[in-house]
Amino acid sequence: MGAISLSDVQKVRTTVDIYGQQYVILGTESPSHVRLVASMVDEKMREISSKNPSLDTSKLAVLTAVNAVNDYIKIKDQLERLESELKRVKD
Amino acid sequence: MGAISLSDVQKVRTTVDIYGQQYVILGTESPSHVRLVASMVDEKMREISSKNPSLDTSKLAVLTAVNAVNDYIKIKDQLERLESELKRVKD
Repeated sequence: MGAISLSDVQKVRTTVDIYGQQYVILGTESPSHVRLVASMVDEKMREISSKNPSLDTSKLAVLTAVNAVNDYIKIKDQLERLESELKRVKD
Repeated sequence: MGAISLSDVQKVRTTVDIYGQQYVILGTESPSHVRLVASMVDEKMREISSKNPSLDTSKLAVLTAVNAVNDYIKIKDQLERLESELKRVKD
């Protein structure tokens, strides 16, 4: 009998469909969360594709990642400003 | 002479290199910001690729987008919690 580590037990396997292709996502997130993320990626890929019909799937996915990382950085800046403000208000 | 709309004037064209492929990113962000975002996407793709060497570029890019959107949702939740807390502290 093989040993099962805690990290193995916590991993959840979720199958999603993104841009017509199936992916098995292995992680600690709930299937409903993974499906939400996948649907956002799928939607963004279709949005970028409709504006740039000549892009292949690989470039389309890279540009989707660029968009998501850009959104992430913007919201991270907002979060940092808010943290400073909260600290100031509390002090 | 063609008309130049304001939106044309504000668009900045930045060429970046992500996972060995060149992309021209057209947007309102500064070239240095676009290059930062591109380098984060490139780094994430290399990280996922090193853990899953059999993935092709297209799937790798989709999984990178999934990761980036996941990070975005998490930080957005954090931001919303902080906004509520700030509102409570101020009231």
